[in-house]
This record gives sequence, C-alpha cells and structure tokens, in this order.
Amino acid sequence: MGTKKVGKMMLMGLLLLFGFAVAPEAMAQTKGIEAPAPATMADIETLQNNLNIVWTCVAAFLVFFMQAGFAMVEAGFTRAKNAVNILMKNLMDFSIGSIAFFVVGFGLMFGATTSGFVGTSDFLLGLSPYGDSFGEQWPFTFLLFQTVFAATAATIVSGAMAERTKFSSYLVYSVFISAFIYPIFGSWAWGGLYNGGGWLENLETPFLDFAGSTVVHSVGGWLALAGAIVLGPRIGKYGPDGKPRAILGHNMTLGALGVFILWLGWFGFNPGSTTTGDGLMGYIAVTTNLAAAAGAIAAMVTAWVIIGKPDASMSLNGVLAGLVAITAPCDAVSPSGAIAIGVIAGMLVVLSVLFIDRVLKIDDPVGAVSVHGVCGLWGTLSVGFFNLESGLFYGGGLSQLMSQIIGAGAAFVWAFGLGMALFLGIRHTMGLRVTEKEEIQGLDIGEHGMEAYSGFQIFTNQ
Amino acid sequence: MGTKKVGKMMLMGLLLLFGFAVAPEAMAQTKGIEAPAPATMADIETLQNNLNIVWTCVAAFLVFFMQAGFAMVEAGFTRAKNAVNILMKNLMDFSIGSIAFFVVGFGLMFGATTSGFVGTSDFLLGLSPYGDSFGEQWPFTFLLFQTVFAATAATIVSGAMAERTKFSSYLVYSVFISAFIYPIFGSWAWGGLYNGGGWLENLETPFLDFAGSTVVHSVGGWLALAGAIVLGPRIGKYGPDGKPRAILGHNMTLGALGVFILWLGWFGFNPGSTTTGDGLMGYIAVTTNLAAAAGAIAAMVTAWVIIGKPDASMSLNGVLAGLVAITAPCDAVSPSGAIAIGVIAGMLVVLSVLFIDRVLKIDDPVGAVSVHGVCGLWGTLSVGFFNLESGLFYGGGLSQLMSQIIGAGAAFVWAFGLGMALFLGIRHTMGLRVTEKEEIQGLDIGEHGMEAYSGFQIFTNQ
Amino acid sequence: MGTKKVGKMMLMGLLLLFGFAVAPEAMAQTKGIEAPAPATMADIETLQNNLNIVWTCVAAFLVFFMQAGFAMVEAGFTRAKNAVNILMKNLMDFSIGSIAFFVVGFGLMFGATTSGFVGTSDFLLGLSPYGDSFGEQWPFTFLLFQTVFAATAATIVSGAMAERTKFSSYLVYSVFISAFIYPIFGSWAWGGLYNGGGWLENLETPFLDFAGSTVVHSVGGWLALAGAIVLGPRIGKYGPDGKPRAILGHNMTLGALGVFILWLGWFGFNPGSTTTGDGLMGYIAVTTNLAAAAGAIAAMVTAWVIIGKPDASMSLNGVLAGLVAITAPCDAVSPSGAIAIGVIAGMLVVLSVLFIDRVLKIDDPVGAVSVHGVCGLWGTLSVGFFNLESGLFYGGGLSQLMSQIIGAGAAFVWAFGLGMALFLGIRHTMGLRVTEKEEIQGLDIGEHGMEAYSGFQIFTNQ
Repeated sequence: MGTKKVGKMMLMGLLLLFGFAVAPEAMAQTKGIEAPAPATMADIETLQNNLNIVWTCVAAFLVFFMQAGFAMVEAGFTRAKNAVNILMKNLMDFSIGSIAFFVVGFGLMFGATTSGFVGTSDFLLGLSPYGDSFGEQWPFTFLLFQTVFAATAATIVSGAMAERTKFSSYLVYSVFISAFIYPIFGSWAWGGLYNGGGWLENLETPFLDFAGSTVVHSVGGWLALAGAIVLGPRIGKYGPDGKPRAILGHNMTLGALGVFILWLGWFGFNPGSTTTGDGLMGYIAVTTNLAAAAGAIAAMVTAWVIIGKPDASMSLNGVLAGLVAITAPCDAVSPSGAIAIGVIAGMLVVLSVLFIDRVLKIDDPVGAVSVHGVCGLWGTLSVGFFNLESGLFYGGGLSQLMSQIIGAGAAFVWAFGLGMALFLGIRHTMGLRVTEKEEIQGLDIGEHGMEAYSGFQIFTNQ
Repeated sequence: MGTKKVGKMMLMGLLLLFGFAVAPEAMAQTKGIEAPAPATMADIETLQNNLNIVWTCVAAFLVFFMQAGFAMVEAGFTRAKNAVNILMKNLMDFSIGSIAFFVVGFGLMFGATTSGFVGTSDFLLGLSPYGDSFGEQWPFTFLLFQTVFAATAATIVSGAMAERTKFSSYLVYSVFISAFIYPIFGSWAWGGLYNGGGWLENLETPFLDFAGSTVVHSVGGWLALAGAIVLGPRIGKYGPDGKPRAILGHNMTLGALGVFILWLGWFGFNPGSTTTGDGLMGYIAVTTNLAAAAGAIAAMVTAWVIIGKPDASMSLNGVLAGLVAITAPCDAVSPSGAIAIGVIAGMLVVLSVLFIDRVLKIDDPVGAVSVHGVCGLWGTLSVGFFNLESGLFYGGGLSQLMSQIIGAGAAFVWAFGLGMALFLGIRHTMGLRVTEKEEIQGLDIGEHGMEAYSGFQIFTNQ
Repeated sequence: MGTKKVGKMMLMGLLLLFGFAVAPEAMAQTKGIEAPAPATMADIETLQNNLNIVWTCVAAFLVFFMQAGFAMVEAGFTRAKNAVNILMKNLMDFSIGSIAFFVVGFGLMFGATTSGFVGTSDFLLGLSPYGDSFGEQWPFTFLLFQTVFAATAATIVSGAMAERTKFSSYLVYSVFISAFIYPIFGSWAWGGLYNGGGWLENLETPFLDFAGSTVVHSVGGWLALAGAIVLGPRIGKYGPDGKPRAILGHNMTLGALGVFILWLGWFGFNPGSTTTGDGLMGYIAVTTNLAAAAGAIAAMVTAWVIIGKPDASMSLNGVLAGLVAITAPCDAVSPSGAIAIGVIAGMLVVLSVLFIDRVLKIDDPVGAVSVHGVCGLWGTLSVGFFNLESGLFYGGGLSQLMSQIIGAGAAFVWAFGLGMALFLGIRHTMGLRVTEKEEIQGLDIGEHGMEAYSGFQIFTNQ
C-alpha cells in the first residue's frame, strides 16, 4: 500500500471486475466461478465503513470550505482598506490551526482521560507514521473532520476583532485557541466520540450538543466577546455623544456569497456529524435547511419592523443565526421544531446585534458575538425544549434543560474567562491593537504593505 | 435515536468494528466468532439505500449551491446600484421557497393523486415528527432534493425582472411560484417518482424530462417572460427611437464565478436526478459536461460572427444554455449527441437574446428567458431527436417528439398563462414596479437603505 | 435504461424496498420471503464499485471547481482592465479541453500501447454510444475524472501569459495542450491505469507520481515558462534600468477566494486519485491539508523575513505550493513528512518567484511557473526522500530518487521543448501578443469589446 503501484493494482482489479479484462485467462476464471462465494457480515461492515469514510471526508471538505465563507463575510462586511488583513487572518488561522490541532489539540480533545477534563494521548496521532489497514486509517478521517471544526471555532473570533487587531498578536492567540481553549472544552462534551469521555457526557442526563452550537459556536462567540471588549471599539465607531455610527461593509455581494458558502458548508457540519452514511444525514439536512430559511425570514421581518427596511446584513446574519441554533438540536427535533428554532434565532440575532451595538457599546463589526455566542446559546438551550425524546415540550421534563444550562454555562465561563485572560495578557505584552495612524490608513498597508483593490478609486476615510 | 448519546453509541459501534476496542470482553467476543455471520440481500439493499442517500444528499447540496451561482450571475450582470436588492431576492426566494415547498408544494407535487393533475397528500410530510427507521427517513432526503429544485425554478424569475421590481411584490409572487405554480406542473411530469403519477407520465409514449429542462427551467423561463412583459423595460433601455441600449453589468468576474458555480451545481442537478449511486451518474456527468462545453464554444463563435467579438456574457450564457438543454436528455443520449445538443443550444441562446432584445423589445437583463425558457424548450424537444431508444435520429419515429411537444406546450400554457395572471394581479393591487425616482437612484437605497460597495467611487447614472 | 420511465421504475423499486409500497401484492410478496436470499461477493463488489463511482464523480466535481479557483486567482492577481480576458481564457480552455480530451486526448493517454510512448485506441471512447451495464459505464466516470485533470494542466498556462496574449492564439495552443502535449506525457506515467502502460511506469523502480505533481503541474508549469519567455514581459514590468516593477493585482479578495476554492478542489485532486472509496482517501486528505497549511505558514514567514511584511500574495501562493508539492507523494508519506514537504515548498515558492522576477527577468504575473513548475518538481523529487517504502530517508536507497529525476527531467524536456516550439510557431504565424495600444488600454476592450467593472472608477494606466 501507499505506492502508485498499489493504486494501479487496485484499479486494475476493479477493471477486471468491471469486465474490461478480455484476456482469455480472466474469461476462463470468470466462467470457472459456478457457485459464487458467499458474503459475510464482515464484508457488509467493511463496505458501510468505506461509505462512512467517503461521507465523512466529503462533509469535512464542505466544512473546510466554510473558511472561504467566513473570509468573504468578514471581508465583505468591513472596509476595503482592511480586506487583505482579514483574508490573511482567515488563511492563517486555518493553516496554523490545522498544524496545532494535529500536534496538540486532537490529543487534548479526544485522547484517553480519567478525569473527564482533558485527554492525554493521541498527540500527533501517536506518531503513527502510516496506516494501511482500515483500522489504522479511520483515525485520519476523524482527525480531518475534527480539524475543520477546530478551525471554525478559531476563525469566528477574527470577525469581532476585525479592523484594529495586530496581525502578529492574532497569530499568537489563534494558536492558543486551536491548540488549547477549543479542544479542552471539546473534550468535556465530545471526548467520548473517540477514546476519551468528558464530564458533560457523564452527567446523569447527558449534555447534548450534536454538532456544536456550544462546543464550536458559543466557544468561538464568547472568545470573540472577550476580544472585542479588550480591544475596544474602532476609531469613529462611537461619537463624542456615545451614539454608535454605522461603519458600512465594502462589498455586500461578497458578503452574500460568503453566507451562501457557509450555508453549503453547514450541510457538512451538521449532517456530517453523524460520521455515518445513512438516513439520519438526510433528516438532519432537512432540519438544518429549514432552520436557516426560517432564520433568514425572521431576521428580515424583525429588521423591517425595527429599522424600517428589509436590511440585507441582518437577513444574512439571520441565515447564520438559524444555522448556529439548529447545530445542537439538528438530529433530534421535528422539521416544525427546526422552523421554530430558526424563527427565534432570526429574531434574536437582530435584537442582540442592536443591544450589543447600542446598549453594551461593544464594537463587533460583523455581529459574530450575536450570531455564534448568543444563537449558539439559544440552540443549546433549545434542545431542552424541542428534543423529541427529552425536551420539555415533548413531556421530557426539566432535566435535559438543566444539563443544557450547565453545559452552556461551562462554555461561557471557560471561553470568556480564558479569552479575557489571553487578550489582556497579549495587550500587556506584545500589544493587541495597531496604532491609531495605521488603523485610519487601513491595516492592509500597515500590516501587509499592499492594498486589496489596486486601481480602484476608494475613499479610505470611510 | 435522535440523541447525541445514540450518535455516540453508533460511533462506538463503528470503532469497535474498526478494531479500536481493546477491552478484553470485546476481544473475546471477536475471537468467539469462528464462522462469520452470512450476509443477506437485505443487507446489500440497506447498503445500496445508504449509498443512494449519501449521493442524493451530496447532489442536493450542489444544487443548493446553484443559488449562490444565480446570485453572482444576476448581480454581476446588472448594475452596482441594484446589487443588494438582487442578493436579497435570491436569498429570500430560497428561504421562502424552502418553507413553502415543505408546507404545501411537496404535497401538491408528489402527493397521492387520482386525476394526475395535482397531489393531495404528504403536506408537511404528513406531519411526521421524526422518523428513525430508514423507511421513514428516505422521504426527507427526497424532500431535500426536491426543495432545491423548486427553489431553482423560483430564482430564475428574479433575473429577468431585475433592477425594477418592488421587493415586497417579489416576496409575494415567489411564494406562489414555489408553493403552487412549480409543484403542480411538476406533479404532471414527475409525480410518479413518489406516490403520485401525472398525466404527462401516463401518455401512451410518456413525456420524458429526466432532470427538468421543462419542469424546472422552461417553467421558470416562461414565468420570467411573463414578468418581464408585465413590468416593461428598465428606464433608458430603449431610446426614443426604440433602439435597445446595452446596460452593462457591474462585475463580470462575479458573473463568471457564478457560471462556474452553476456548472458545478449542475453536476448535482443532472447526475443527482438518478437518486441512485451507480454508474449512470458518471455517464450523465459526462453528457452534462460535454453539452456545457459545447454550448460555451458555440455561443462564443456565434457571437464572434454576429457581434464581431468573442463576447464574454454570451459565452457564459452559452454554458448555461448547454446545461439547460442537456437537462432533459442527459441520461439517454450519446456523448456526441450531447455535444450536438450543446452546440445548438449555444447558437440558439445568442440568437434568442438578440431577438428578444432587438425585435420583441422585451427587457431581460440577464437573458433568463433565452437561457431557461428557449433552451429548456430545445432540450425537451431534443429528447425526441436524440434519445437512443425513442428518438427520431435513432429510428424511434415521431411519437416521442409528439409527447415532448405536448409536455413543453403544456408548460408554456401553464407557466406563461398563470405568470401573466399573477403579475398583472400584483400590478393592479400592491404594485409590481418601484418608482421612477427609486429606479434611477438604485433599488439598494430605496428598498434596503444601504449600498453594496461602500467607499467605492461608482457612477450610478449608468 | 436511459429513459425517464426506467428512472421511475428504479425509484419505485427503491421505494418498495423502503417499505412505502402498501399494495397488498407487495405485502404478500414481502411476507413470502421467509429465509432471506443470501448475498454473494459479487454483490459486495458491485456495491463497492458503485461507491467508487460516487466518490470518483464527487472528486471530479471538486477538481472541476478548481477552474473557478484558477479564474479568481488569475483575475484577482492581475489588473482590472484584463479581467474579462482572463475569465474568457479560463472558461474556454476548460470547454475546449473537455471536447478535445474526449475526442483525442483520452485515447492518446489511456489507449492501448505497445511502445509505452502513446496510446492508440479509445478515441471518442470507441464511439460507444451508450452503456447501460456497469462494465460499460465505469469508463465514463474515469473519462470525467481525467478530463478535469487535463483541463487543469491547460489552465495553468494562462496565468503566466496573462495580460498580453492574443485571445485567438490562446485558443489554438489550448487545443494543442489538452489534445496532445498533456495526454502524451500522461501516457508515459499513468497509461497503465486504464489499458495502456507507459515507459515511466516500466522503469525498474517505477516513477511515482500519485496525483500529478509532474504529470499535471510541472507539465503545465514548464509550458507556462516557455510561454512567458516567448511572449516577453508586460509593458512597464521592467524599467529602463532593468529593475522589476510590481504590477499589483486588482482584487485580493477574489484572489484569496480562488485559493480557498483551489484548496477545496485539491481534496478531489489528491484523495480522488484513489478512484476508490476506502480509508486511503481520508489519509490522503490529511497529508494534503497539512502540506497546504505548512506551505502557507512557511511562505508567509519567508516573505516576512525577506520582504519585511507578511505578504498576502506570497502566503496564498504558499498554499498552492504546498498543494502542488504534496500531489505526487500524498499517498505514501507520513503526516509529519507532509508537513516537511509543505514547509520546503512554501519557502521555495517565495525564493523562486523572486528569482524568476528579479534574476531571470521573466514576467510571470501570477507566479505560475514557481507554483506549478518548481514546486511540482520539488514534490516529485520529495517522493524519493519521503516515501515510506522506497524513500531515501526511510532506508529505501537512491533508486526511487533516480526514477523521480528521470520522470521529472522527461517532463521538463517534453513540456518546455514542445512549448517553445508551439509558442514560437504561433508567434511567427498568427502572432502571440496583442498590440502595444491594446495592451495599454486593456485586453477587455480590445479583445472582447467590454469592460469587467462597468460604473466603477478605475485607473487603467496602473
């Protein structure tokens, strides 16, 4: 295995089976088989395993593509003078995250654990150099799927801290998030998927977060909240009277493209979390899609009522709100439950964006805290209400809701707490924010020595 | 089923199979199996079903992504001042369509029927709250695939009516299309795929439209034609002398990206319409690709001859023309037949665009009527010529062609007729078109209170 | 087969299996089955074949989408006044390539051969009009996968020759590349995958290029080098003193999007080259991802050290460098080996871009020669060092490295040599370069009669 020769041999084998081998020997052999060899359940299991690998890999590719979606949304929703910087952050958090999660994060999240608080094996996948049996290869598919999840958590933060964060500082905290903060929390809720087993899974009524409303999105959202607080608002965001001023994004077309890409990617994120190719993935794809659609409509209507216009950025964030919210309950709610969850998320994201912007006066350029933090929280709690087996609305009592509150609360304490420590630590050492001059001129020139749109007339004082 | 626990159990089961379970009990069990359990055809069928679900879902995701393609093509081919409006329409027709098709459309299209003219069951998928057996889950995969098709039909209309339609009116007719107009016609041709059975399927020589040249594209195209007629041309499109004036799109790069995305999505649209993971999908992918390529080349050459330059928007529409045309016959023509169908479609789309623009003087900003209506018609008729079993060129006589004419004619009468009624109805009640002032200023400001490209110098009087 | 009816019948069959058929006869039949029919290994093989087809097609779709990635990278990294031209080239090389490879190229590459230097059968897939058995359908899936590979090789060239090449000349050489130059070299290294068998496969230690670092990327890269040399630099690229001047790309956002799309596509390119749905693809996806991530980081750091800033275009090219390099060894190196290969590629691409630009003074607007030629060479040689079975670092001695040098050398001689002949031939007949006036004004107006960004204020003298 592992050489081109083997690949060729495998393919030649296939071609033989396909009936292309016209050599007389082959024909004779074929004719010689009078009683076909019987198949065993082990053969069936191998095939199902192969199907699971294909599906899980395809899902991972879709989740990977969410990086492009985040890049387009974040760049589109901010100013042209900072576009290169945002793209570089998105590129680098995925690149650094891929390596860091392979080296450290995967072991912390899915390694063997006695405490249920952190894994302690499987770093570098046990240095296993190469696996040619199926048993040795599944971990790589699983690693791939988990890597793209880890990178999603890391990239959420960049949106809330856009247009004013030092690039070098960004690289530093990005490592911390994908190597430590995300995986350790992840081990609490998901470690049992591999060879660990976390304390949130071992609650009497286990905490349920099927695809990561809390594990990925709220953790990312609360880290983003900490970052936005420590950084402070962009220059000009709040006037001398404290009133917020809208700082418009430079490319709504790319912002919309980004949201469509994210929607596509979520079909890997949620249905892919089955890591199994069977009917459940189709079911989850339906609940996921309905919640996203409902979120878009609800956010548009809410914005129309409150702001007076069907605002595009609110509607686009409504899609993401619905998607983030359905992530935890997607496998275990009815389609109509999914619509309800999406509607509430869509309303919530508009109210939350306005509240954070106008009342809390925290400057979150793309609404990352509202989308991922707040709607992730809502989605996690919604399991307690809408789960068809254990939800309050289906006669399941309060115990599921309690477990959801415990898990969501733990995520907030962990991510917001560590985030504050991390960002304050960076601010007092290497510095977290660019100079005032650089911020006004744009980070593209200051940090990267280039501009995104050479040849175009752009008003950078916007 | 339906809880994270179960997901975990399933995964644990898998891991056991993969040989990761090193617990002594598991080892003992494994060793205890001396004669492996034999597999039955029921196991084989379950696996093939699982493979079909994986493939159909992946295909549905690709078709979903066509929404991003349409959004980029339509935005790119129109003016910057209307980009937000176009993006919002694309976002909302998919969102509204997803809910409307789930609630009403699916039942009308695929529900039980005695007349063959409309289905009357399976609304809200029978309110089935949650299916955990495979039998109950296939409908959700099928719903997903059909939902993304329905949304495609709806979104076609927005291109032809771009840059002058009221947003609120758009939302209203979008509901009608995805909830009623598309699904009822769909039931005539495709109801038998589920538990209905339409009259076009019951013709002596059944009407053939494998993936929807008529059901999706022509229906969308003739609705678009009705809309463009009722709306009238954009201000400045036709001079006082009646001569058409080119109104250039604002971003050909995004237009081209959109076409590439649509091409990708069509690999879900056509091969996915097998809803079966086997060799036929690869065959269809080849015919689909060859027709698209041939369409691009033919349109470029035709434009070069007529206009004098290898025009980019014509070439890009040539791709779409080839794709729309091959949609009906993709499963049953030879590769060289596919090339021929694509070549004709590519020539046809250029001639049709010029004819509609210059002779009929109907203003269709992106050429949607030509691409989807005219080439959908051509593709549907081409079955009668090129089908390897029943086509005229292969000795099949005229009966197939007659059935194709009947089906295509029914689509025109239904979609154009109802479209005229719908758009005239809206025009005389809530109004269909924005004010002259708003149209000149751009719909982004008037309808959505924002602009797409903040900070860029743009000449909006273009 | 091949008609809608059959599709319906197949689906009806499925639905029966799924338990939806409630007709009494069906129930009786089902109940009649008391001892389930046993399954044979032939059933298992059919299923695995079906899974292979699904996976290979999905992979081909992802590789197809790389066309969009190349279009965005090449357009984004060059000037706005040439964007339409670049998009048209990317569109047309894929379209023409799809037809040319079907008609001629596939047969030259994979047809039967005695010499090992060129295939001589399977043109037009033997004119096989339509295959309904599995045996006849696999070739179409294989054709599809190989078509998208051929188009990748062709499209690489357009980047290096951007902003000054005549469109009609481009069409001519694009045909030559996809019909002859690429497939004949391909037959040397990959012919044995189908019914040929090339001389590089028959070396004592066979040349290994799992997914095409040499076959696709170096061949494309050396053709690009020949093209850039024959064309000469763009006007204004080198000052009177011979010093290179940076000509900035017009849209880094689209450039970054393009790189993300290419990264996604590479998950089809490398894992898909298994053409088998099993655990190896997950393994390859991991090595591919790690090399890309490592390439991005290494290029960023290298640029930071040399240029003084974390340059975005260098970092983005670092991703591509890592991807190109891992393409040959992806199936047979350890994850840490993949990281090492990516790191070296990331450093190499920066040095190579600067060397070609400043020392060789060859004008390659997007760095295609460095990315595809140089890093393709490095990836091919890296097999000789890092292959877990035959690599020098794993005790495999020098014979693998020798074979790699032979294969890579043959690629250079073949592609660069024929490229020089081809481009010089075109230059002396129909001409290769646009007029000076057209180049300054931009190729979009001159070649296509339109501009990419109507309504935007753009400084075309940039």
